[in-house]
Amino acid sequence: MNTYMSKFEANYTALTPITFLKRAAMSYADRTSIIYGEARFTWQETYDRCRRLASSLQSLGIAKNEVVSVLAPNIPALYEMHFAVPMAGGVLNTINTMLDANGVKSILDHSEAKILFVDYEYIPLAYEALRLLNVDPKRSTTKLSVVIIGDSTNKNGKLESSKKHLEYEELVVKGNVDFMAVKIEDEWDPITLSYTSGTTSSPKGVVYSHRGAFLGTLSLILGWEMGTQPVYLWSLPMFHCNGWTFTWGIAARGGTNVCIRNTTASMIYKSIALHGVTHMCCAPVVLNIILEERKQLTTQVQVQVLVGGSPPPEKLLIKMEELGFYIVHAYGLTEATGAALVCEWQKRWDKHSHEERARLKARQGISVLNIEDLDVKDTVTMQSVPKDGKTTGEIVIRGSGIMKGYFKNEKATSEAFASGWFHTGDVGVIHPDGYIQVKDRLKDVIISGGENISSVQVEEVIYQHPEVLQVAVVAMPHPRWGETPCAFLVVKTAKHHTVTENDIITYCRNNLPHYMVPKKVCFLMDLPKTSTGKVQKGTLRAMAKNIQLPDFNNHLQMPPKFTSSRL
Amino acid sequence: MNTYMSKFEANYTALTPITFLKRAAMSYADRTSIIYGEARFTWQETYDRCRRLASSLQSLGIAKNEVVSVLAPNIPALYEMHFAVPMAGGVLNTINTMLDANGVKSILDHSEAKILFVDYEYIPLAYEALRLLNVDPKRSTTKLSVVIIGDSTNKNGKLESSKKHLEYEELVVKGNVDFMAVKIEDEWDPITLSYTSGTTSSPKGVVYSHRGAFLGTLSLILGWEMGTQPVYLWSLPMFHCNGWTFTWGIAARGGTNVCIRNTTASMIYKSIALHGVTHMCCAPVVLNIILEERKQLTTQVQVQVLVGGSPPPEKLLIKMEELGFYIVHAYGLTEATGAALVCEWQKRWDKHSHEERARLKARQGISVLNIEDLDVKDTVTMQSVPKDGKTTGEIVIRGSGIMKGYFKNEKATSEAFASGWFHTGDVGVIHPDGYIQVKDRLKDVIISGGENISSVQVEEVIYQHPEVLQVAVVAMPHPRWGETPCAFLVVKTAKHHTVTENDIITYCRNNLPHYMVPKKVCFLMDLPKTSTGKVQKGTLRAMAKNIQLPDFNNHLQMPPKFTSSRL
Repeated sequence: MNTYMSKFEANYTALTPITFLKRAAMSYADRTSIIYGEARFTWQETYDRCRRLASSLQSLGIAKNEVVSVLAPNIPALYEMHFAVPMAGGVLNTINTMLDANGVKSILDHSEAKILFVDYEYIPLAYEALRLLNVDPKRSTTKLSVVIIGDSTNKNGKLESSKKHLEYEELVVKGNVDFMAVKIEDEWDPITLSYTSGTTSSPKGVVYSHRGAFLGTLSLILGWEMGTQPVYLWSLPMFHCNGWTFTWGIAARGGTNVCIRNTTASMIYKSIALHGVTHMCCAPVVLNIILEERKQLTTQVQVQVLVGGSPPPEKLLIKMEELGFYIVHAYGLTEATGAALVCEWQKRWDKHSHEERARLKARQGISVLNIEDLDVKDTVTMQSVPKDGKTTGEIVIRGSGIMKGYFKNEKATSEAFASGWFHTGDVGVIHPDGYIQVKDRLKDVIISGGENISSVQVEEVIYQHPEVLQVAVVAMPHPRWGETPCAFLVVKTAKHHTVTENDIITYCRNNLPHYMVPKKVCFLMDLPKTSTGKVQKGTLRAMAKNIQLPDFNNHLQMPPKFTSSRL
Repeated sequence: MNTYMSKFEANYTALTPITFLKRAAMSYADRTSIIYGEARFTWQETYDRCRRLASSLQSLGIAKNEVVSVLAPNIPALYEMHFAVPMAGGVLNTINTMLDANGVKSILDHSEAKILFVDYEYIPLAYEALRLLNVDPKRSTTKLSVVIIGDSTNKNGKLESSKKHLEYEELVVKGNVDFMAVKIEDEWDPITLSYTSGTTSSPKGVVYSHRGAFLGTLSLILGWEMGTQPVYLWSLPMFHCNGWTFTWGIAARGGTNVCIRNTTASMIYKSIALHGVTHMCCAPVVLNIILEERKQLTTQVQVQVLVGGSPPPEKLLIKMEELGFYIVHAYGLTEATGAALVCEWQKRWDKHSHEERARLKARQGISVLNIEDLDVKDTVTMQSVPKDGKTTGEIVIRGSGIMKGYFKNEKATSEAFASGWFHTGDVGVIHPDGYIQVKDRLKDVIISGGENISSVQVEEVIYQHPEVLQVAVVAMPHPRWGETPCAFLVVKTAKHHTVTENDIITYCRNNLPHYMVPKKVCFLMDLPKTSTGKVQKGTLRAMAKNIQLPDFNNHLQMPPKFTSSRL
């Protein structure tokens, strides 16, 4: 066959999530797109608002591929910007609101943002960051303009004190509703820029293409089996991988976005009761919050919950299902456009015991459909490990859902993709049924007496102790075994007088091979975490280095920073 | 932002449905992929068999982009070829088994096929076609090799009488299980070639790209909300748009293919009872078959049915739902990689009456997600019609799910895409809620039992009858087949006493595939024509609507308008 056939405008169009909004306005015009407090929007209104905002962005000088930053919680404006900024040709940079001024400043600096949108609540943080950047927020400059997002709990909500600023609602109102989105000539063009939280080094700017965002969105909808018309609660920050792509995904599904400013138990329960929430995503810690406040649950609910991060423990899964929360476990990274693996439930598992089902559910699962290939490779030989559920290797992935690269960091980009794979840095196994389970971070492997110990495995056991709330296990130096596990944990408040180091160690001895039992247990008030909620194991490892083992010293000497008995 | 960022092997991979099979072998290895009679395969086995077959295809000389044709019903071999042929780098051409030898010959000729795979049941048809092509099926030639597919109701099934032929199972057995699929360097490369009976007598070869097939597959799974692990009954021929992409889709979903040689009521009911079928696609005529034989239904079932072609009537919908068949209506064309619209159900319609729900369901619906844009345009002004459910225009679509073009027909390809849109040739309206409804057809295509029939092709045959002076063929409504061809003709004056309806029908039976034969022939003194001499097919269609079919009434009762023996 002569392979040459021209591409036409009619049969070769750029893959872009902008399509989802346009289609939603066509097919779901009068369905509710966004709920926020008392405010309601339809898909037609959301499309119109985005067109208006996009035209205003162009009037403000946003040219193709220029960066627009935003510092905001899960409010309608942040949702709209996920479409309006690329419709204007720009690149959306959502900033983690938990960063400090220095972190925000670094991002504004590195991203070369032309406009910064700031939710009114984050004005002090933004001003401090701008001060560090030597930008006067009240004076329009070519360097960086500032737009304030007022409290839009009603459609016409404006911030009284922002007269001196450009104001979000004003840009929307003044914009041209007939504005046509900038045509995406190349689907490889950038759509968003997201900085990963640095546990180790300085943050890297992860760039998604329109193509990657489109494919990532559809793949996760498919992987989670999200049907049409979901009522989606924004319990996960939109600034996390663009809300794991559900910013775009809810438009693709013609669903309703329930926006909430803060993810609290009462807001979650209230939203479920008022709006019939069907889907939500969150970190495991939110499950605990939901569970602790379950007295607030007044009606029968059925909510699908997609959970990232560490696998939810069995008891938690069981209790959540009793309440009507059905948890699916996903695994991903910013670099993989959110989720790369989803623990797809298999019907034949229905017959298993609670314990067995929880064990199966706690695995990270199978690749979503935009992952072209997935493997677990021995870190030394780079050979695929057998599907035995035991042999560990690094999880590597490949596919059009992976980021374009790190912004202005060719070296890191080349390194990340050097071998034809993206290296996740996570150590896992492949079970005989093809499901992947993460066992450790590459850096978190504890090697004791020549044996590899998975810190995750130790954590899982300790977590099952009834008095434990949070736990992190890292390697600590050991004069005899090279390394040994050291457990840092937070106990449930009311109980913190009753649990001792020996209790935990005994518990581990009863539930783990002896070589895996931590030789040291430290009690903290909270675990050190990054702004995105990830436990800073590097910090804990540094702490562990300074702890003297009780075996070798009867008196526990904590490093100077942690002198109190309960840390 | 500097837009330049290199593409890497890890983050820019060709979109191709081959991924779905590889992933199924990884993630669903021991789940049942195919059921056929007593035979069972797992996804690992199917992947292995496809690899073996692909390696054998290469050994037979199939090079990149060469065409492999197949004439077979819905058997495992045809399913496997949907992966094995592209894995070998080839292009799959599935031939409609209802064609006559001349039709098959034309396709083999035009497609330049290098190998023809023939199911044993279709050997006589294939041999006749090959005779017309001057190819000796029992002698290997460089022109065209023939491979016989034996009765593989068991995994090792072979055809006793085929010793002189290459045999399908032998190719599988002899192949290399470690064969690696040919790397798709460009997702725009062709994957399949399917001939449509369009408006002209010579069929056009519709070419899909790997990209289009990948996107079409995912979009229809999403549009139909097909969950994971479907048990899919092959009631729709795989040769129709590659089974509306579900050949690839069932692999993507890790489902089970229930293959059946013939779509009969007893096979449908047996498959549902034995294998727990959850999904099936079909033409509306199959719904009638199911309904007529409903006494065969012994258990409670719940089957999702995707129906193409004419909208199912209200009563049929109600009765089918009572039996447990939930019908969703889709609209598409070969050129659109199967479905372009799906009548997505909206929850708020649940509360409506049966009648209202049937009315809503009978519409063609909203675009699937690979359609970048959709519109209904006035055929003269090319302006969009209002969303009033009344004003008609031509349905036009655009997106990466549209075919690459017509094979070796640049003129028809350019015409199809001329205005930046693909013209469906169907006339429709947009309802205020954004749902599209087809009202009429611009092109002279008759859709009978899900098969496209070119009225021009039927006319050409009838015109060759020695007594015929003028002929026009149009669609007439048919209670079973949706539509059937109705021929209006003018005979040569001297002979008009001697030619009967039966003569013409018999003549057609001898010169056309049976499904194309008109069920009604009307004799006119002249054909209604425009001032420029063009036959007014619209007028004839209106006439045909009022004609009662002889099949359903022993006495042919012509409507009053047509009382004379010769009209």
